[in-house]
Amino acid sequence: MSVAGQDIDRAISFPNIPGYQTLKCDFHIHTVFSDGSVWPNIRVQEALKDGLDAISLTEHIEYQPHGEDLPHPDRNRSYLIAKEQAKAHDLIVVHGAEITRDLPPGHANAIFIKDANKLVLVDSIEAYREAKRQGGFIFWNHPNWIAQQRNGKATLTDLHRMLIREGLLDGIEVVNDVTYSDEALQIALDNDLTVIGTSDIHGLIDWQYELGRGGHRPVSLVFATERSEEGIKQALLERRSVAWFNNLLVGNSEVLQPLVEASIEVVECTYQGPSSVATVLLKNDSDAAYILRNQTEYTFHAHADVITVPAQSEVKIEVKTGEQTDQFELSFEVLNAVIAPATHPSITIPVRVDL
Amino acid sequence: MSVAGQDIDRAISFPNIPGYQTLKCDFHIHTVFSDGSVWPNIRVQEALKDGLDAISLTEHIEYQPHGEDLPHPDRNRSYLIAKEQAKAHDLIVVHGAEITRDLPPGHANAIFIKDANKLVLVDSIEAYREAKRQGGFIFWNHPNWIAQQRNGKATLTDLHRMLIREGLLDGIEVVNDVTYSDEALQIALDNDLTVIGTSDIHGLIDWQYELGRGGHRPVSLVFATERSEEGIKQALLERRSVAWFNNLLVGNSEVLQPLVEASIEVVECTYQGPSSVATVLLKNDSDAAYILRNQTEYTFHAHADVITVPAQSEVKIEVKTGEQTDQFELSFEVLNAVIAPATHPSITIPVRVDL
Amino acid sequence: MSVAGQDIDRAISFPNIPGYQTLKCDFHIHTVFSDGSVWPNIRVQEALKDGLDAISLTEHIEYQPHGEDLPHPDRNRSYLIAKEQAKAHDLIVVHGAEITRDLPPGHANAIFIKDANKLVLVDSIEAYREAKRQGGFIFWNHPNWIAQQRNGKATLTDLHRMLIREGLLDGIEVVNDVTYSDEALQIALDNDLTVIGTSDIHGLIDWQYELGRGGHRPVSLVFATERSEEGIKQALLERRSVAWFNNLLVGNSEVLQPLVEASIEVVECTYQGPSSVATVLLKNDSDAAYILRNQTEYTFHAHADVITVPAQSEVKIEVKTGEQTDQFELSFEVLNAVIAPATHPSITIPVRVDL
Amino acid sequence: MSVAGQDIDRAISFPNIPGYQTLKCDFHIHTVFSDGSVWPNIRVQEALKDGLDAISLTEHIEYQPHGEDLPHPDRNRSYLIAKEQAKAHDLIVVHGAEITRDLPPGHANAIFIKDANKLVLVDSIEAYREAKRQGGFIFWNHPNWIAQQRNGKATLTDLHRMLIREGLLDGIEVVNDVTYSDEALQIALDNDLTVIGTSDIHGLIDWQYELGRGGHRPVSLVFATERSEEGIKQALLERRSVAWFNNLLVGNSEVLQPLVEASIEVVECTYQGPSSVATVLLKNDSDAAYILRNQTEYTFHAHADVITVPAQSEVKIEVKTGEQTDQFELSFEVLNAVIAPATHPSITIPVRVDL
Repeated sequence: MSVAGQDIDRAISFPNIPGYQTLKCDFHIHTVFSDGSVWPNIRVQEALKDGLDAISLTEHIEYQPHGEDLPHPDRNRSYLIAKEQAKAHDLIVVHGAEITRDLPPGHANAIFIKDANKLVLVDSIEAYREAKRQGGFIFWNHPNWIAQQRNGKATLTDLHRMLIREGLLDGIEVVNDVTYSDEALQIALDNDLTVIGTSDIHGLIDWQYELGRGGHRPVSLVFATERSEEGIKQALLERRSVAWFNNLLVGNSEVLQPLVEASIEVVECTYQGPSSVATVLLKNDSDAAYILRNQTEYTFHAHADVITVPAQSEVKIEVKTGEQTDQFELSFEVLNAVIAPATHPSITIPVRVDL
Repeated sequence: MSVAGQDIDRAISFPNIPGYQTLKCDFHIHTVFSDGSVWPNIRVQEALKDGLDAISLTEHIEYQPHGEDLPHPDRNRSYLIAKEQAKAHDLIVVHGAEITRDLPPGHANAIFIKDANKLVLVDSIEAYREAKRQGGFIFWNHPNWIAQQRNGKATLTDLHRMLIREGLLDGIEVVNDVTYSDEALQIALDNDLTVIGTSDIHGLIDWQYELGRGGHRPVSLVFATERSEEGIKQALLERRSVAWFNNLLVGNSEVLQPLVEASIEVVECTYQGPSSVATVLLKNDSDAAYILRNQTEYTFHAHADVITVPAQSEVKIEVKTGEQTDQFELSFEVLNAVIAPATHPSITIPVRVDL
Repeated sequence: MSVAGQDIDRAISFPNIPGYQTLKCDFHIHTVFSDGSVWPNIRVQEALKDGLDAISLTEHIEYQPHGEDLPHPDRNRSYLIAKEQAKAHDLIVVHGAEITRDLPPGHANAIFIKDANKLVLVDSIEAYREAKRQGGFIFWNHPNWIAQQRNGKATLTDLHRMLIREGLLDGIEVVNDVTYSDEALQIALDNDLTVIGTSDIHGLIDWQYELGRGGHRPVSLVFATERSEEGIKQALLERRSVAWFNNLLVGNSEVLQPLVEASIEVVECTYQGPSSVATVLLKNDSDAAYILRNQTEYTFHAHADVITVPAQSEVKIEVKTGEQTDQFELSFEVLNAVIAPATHPSITIPVRVDL
Repeated sequence: MSVAGQDIDRAISFPNIPGYQTLKCDFHIHTVFSDGSVWPNIRVQEALKDGLDAISLTEHIEYQPHGEDLPHPDRNRSYLIAKEQAKAHDLIVVHGAEITRDLPPGHANAIFIKDANKLVLVDSIEAYREAKRQGGFIFWNHPNWIAQQRNGKATLTDLHRMLIREGLLDGIEVVNDVTYSDEALQIALDNDLTVIGTSDIHGLIDWQYELGRGGHRPVSLVFATERSEEGIKQALLERRSVAWFNNLLVGNSEVLQPLVEASIEVVECTYQGPSSVATVLLKNDSDAAYILRNQTEYTFHAHADVITVPAQSEVKIEVKTGEQTDQFELSFEVLNAVIAPATHPSITIPVRVDL
């Protein structure tokens, strides 16, 4: 079933959180204008089908394998075509480019820039500086990439520390394509970098993430005060983002905890007859299949301590409250979300009983 | 696709464990001969479709709501019909009956009995004794039943303690129909009772457990030295059983840990090129969708610390081993299995690398 | 998703036709009270899940294989239990019984009777007469049954002709369980008998008709002026019924043609730009997957002459009308419906173009 | 499940016919090198996933909307890239180009050419002649295209007649993208043109043909003596091809009838006990869901005269043969195949009974 170009089955969906809209964004995408395999219009259509709010086509500045066939001198071309394609739709196209260097500093995306051509500079640090002069937001791409880091462990170098100190590095990919990095998350936390998740797609989204088998593309969920380019940029600068990847939510607890809490709603709660077993109907209004571990003293009538709540669906939890009461609290560790390596957010769900 | 009366899609499947066959058994079932809604032949067919090894039709001795229409004086009738029906198939039918009393002692199933008619006795304790004289194995049914226990918390009474002391109570249902009880599990552990999971089906298995949506009937997995009535009885007396319910495995660690380990096999492991990221292909040869939490120092390249391994399928885990090595160990807390309330078994998986 | 006991996925659904409600009925059902395998309450629940309007439990008068266990002398018992069970629901339970004899006359169901006990008579013809005295409607069951008719071809005997002449035979099963009979349909047409389709279920509907793979139970669609026992009886006496079986609709054209026409609606029709190719959006509001063969001079832009319209869905047909016009007619032979052996109804669909 | 780059679920599959291999080919495909939206490598991957044997990238010679970005003077570039990509796989890439003119003659594909650059000629007829000089096979594209033919009816002009007379037109698309044309089929039959079906894909196969909902790309099934470029060319020149589109098979009866017969195999046939109802198990070893209409005097025990045989599956037909016999014949009109407008092939299936 298709609504205005958006395929409902595959559209990524998460609720807003208090004070912010939840925008679904992919800031790392390639086309034939660098080493990707599709024209920019396909990227726009994929984004619309995926229900995204914003994308950025981030062609390699320095790597142009199709250059023989596309000898264009204009590094903004891909952006301009996508922007034109997106006009008829409600999709934000952010101007971006990938500064593509050996490690360190490795690859980095500069988004919200004005002119990618000016980033064609010999010195990578100068390219970062130019991007910042244009108002860019810069994040380190796939710091866990085994082609550049054999052990797969994102590691901060002195050069990166310098970039951070000089305000030239704003974010870091904790998720890139089909990978996630605990080490990158720790770097983000230690250095106040924004957590980023991207597809880095070169081929087709449908194939790479096996959408036909229920997969989804990695994205950054960005919590913005308004649905605009400016709103997204400000949110990123203020580190209000969560990476969504392979049923995992990654972010700092300031935004990740409200996101989980906004996802799960108590629809109703009643006692079963004169018993003190309360049936709580929970509704999960998100694409995440939550894995919850009980943190209260209560035991359940149909579950042990771990409960799974499938995406976009309702589940019943039967809570033994000891005696009947008109309200109580559930509390869970959220195992499919991380706020630090091997560290999960906790949520509290107040329940009011329909007596 | 149907193989000899067994519906492959719904047949419950778990691997054997070292030294024992894993038999799938349901020891709590009703028909029109007490308060159920089907003839015994349907129970045999359901069991065959579900891939069970053994069933017991356990009609209420004292509760005969269809008595006006089925005024049979013979409490063995249901067993005899099912036994006859099962002859053409490889299904064990265990003779049983439900001693149906107020709490305490509540309801109890006596299985492996010889003559249910002799259990028709005024004094419930005498009925237990008669069952034992016949060689019976007795377990307490749904100790968490809110019709008998308003707070839903299984609680041992002095009468039960006496029954246990006298050797009149061998097991306890930690799973009955659509319920699970942490308190019953604790009672089993504290009193060396056998852990039992049953459907207590009265209507149709297909409907009650929503097989069309991937559900399964609750069963006891019994670990027997031979696939026979005697083998099952001995296994139960020696507490070698696990309850399987709603993707939860419940049992003591002596059998539950080997069951999980037998379920998960390393198919292959190789390093990705010159990197030290090892791709481990795990195969889950069971119906349980495992939820595993990393207990090693290793981090993963495509997961945070919690990994789900769908039923009857393969998943890849990419392990960052720091340097290349020819063998290493994975270790996980198994969150969809409990060996005590809120306590999960740990498994260790040795991995040999194909260098 | 379950609505008041009715399972939406499996509920049989056909639209009303002009002047009549379309009621879904199964008039041939067994329980443990003859040779079936379930208690009557299961039959009520199956009917509710299948979205039926009426059922009749038609136990064999003369065949009581469970008689040893259910030695009830009252042949009305099954009806009475089902009637009681159905009280809380909007399901009509029609009193019936199966007069079970060798061929001729074979088996016959008498429905709308008052007392099945009075049908226990040595002479089958007398049993028919008694059923008629009670106001019964009588139909010949499975005239194609190979246990009674080796070549499987329903054949009228002199005895049947006599029954028809005397007004003792009102209908004939053209569909019974998993069989359909062209010969029975011809007999119905030649002798003004009502066309009947029934499940004759003994086991479980879910299994026998493989509901999990999209199957459905056979039913009679009865076109009644009101949704009541009386409405159904009158409709049957006036031959307003269609058998629905395995995606086949069987009946006389007076009701079958309006049923097909009511099933298919033109949602919208527009020309593609300045072309004279009209896109017609057809909606099939029924459970039948229609197979339609073009009977007009028009050719289509995306189909040859045969078009399939899946159940409960929409399809687009692009019609080359030669020149633009504000209205035209489609006409199809309906290949999954028969009004006589190898004879299909024709429908005409007027199309108004949104110019 | 993926086998060597080929996605089993979506791979198009039809059996060979006596004397010939059945090759699945798509000879009308676009990339960014004319007005398509993907790089040639995606076309190779799509073809491998679809199980194709051969493709031809047929860029518009005269229409280069991406020319500003891809100002390549070499019209062979797309072919060369695809050829290189296909090297590692068992996929034949045929050199082709689309001669793109107003009607008449409209668009035409020349395949098996040597140098597309030489087709850049002002006079379209000269381009055809050059293609033939290079050994090309030329077919008329989408003669039913409403942008060129408002009424959607393929119509031969004098120019086309001249082309045919001069041997400059070998085939005609009866299927293009999401359209089929009865008129084009009639033109093919009247003028001995080869029947062609193509996708004419510009975007993504997955989206355009809704593979996720069971759709398939249109192809030409080519019946070749060997699986090679030469084998395909000779087959096309000898008109051994069938268009496969939206569950419709289109072709001349010389190859279409054997194709249907090769698709359907009698697995076994036995009588039901002493009856003369023969159960015939038919296996459909093709992707076509056959719709068959009985052409014999036999009637069936579970069907009226029209039978559907789902793709890649088995169905049982119960045939009333009157008396038991050791062999008989089934005969069907094949309604989802056309050998002329509104004309279907007939097949005969000899059945040997296991007595």
